[in-house]
Amino acid sequence: MILEVAILEVRAGQGGDFENSFREASLIIAKMTGYISHELRRCMEKPNQYLLLVNWERLEDHTIGFRQSPEYQKWRELLHHYYDPFPTVEHYSPAVVRSGN
Amino acid sequence: MILEVAILEVRAGQGGDFENSFREASLIIAKMTGYISHELRRCMEKPNQYLLLVNWERLEDHTIGFRQSPEYQKWRELLHHYYDPFPTVEHYSPAVVRSGN
Repeated sequence: MILEVAILEVRAGQGGDFENSFREASLIIAKMTGYISHELRRCMEKPNQYLLLVNWERLEDHTIGFRQSPEYQKWRELLHHYYDPFPTVEHYSPAVVRSGN
Repeated sequence: MILEVAILEVRAGQGGDFENSFREASLIIAKMTGYISHELRRCMEKPNQYLLLVNWERLEDHTIGFRQSPEYQKWRELLHHYYDPFPTVEHYSPAVVRSGN
């Protein structure tokens, strides 16, 4: 299981619209092969900044399966116009240390 | 519940030592008031980069309770010398969207 991580900088004043569009986009990603779970959180220090975390079974489920799918075109249409700059997406391997509940 | 997020850039060649020190440091943070859970993951695109996620009950459990504690001095001694540059730590409010398992 790998974790996709993106820091999303949303254009000023568009946070509410972005959150609504993201709810709609959530229905798209949740149906993809290899998708496990995702969450979107808002930064407390920078209100225009969000954190997207997506758990995938395999790296390729995101980089190939999702990104080369027709569904990704809809995802892009819904979300990409909110971002400035366009975000860098990185992937993280399973936890090397995990503790707690 | 808030999420502390830090992207950690570890000096080249010190990843293994860092992971071992982090395991020791994990015992410190796990005892703090307001601590819920944490995980450390390694970046697949940039092997010297790690992601630290810590769930806290309240923002102040991290920013005041932990950072002003004697235990934080030990945490610093164990970990801070691995970082270059010194990381920015941000906090994220509860998920605005969460889906999946």
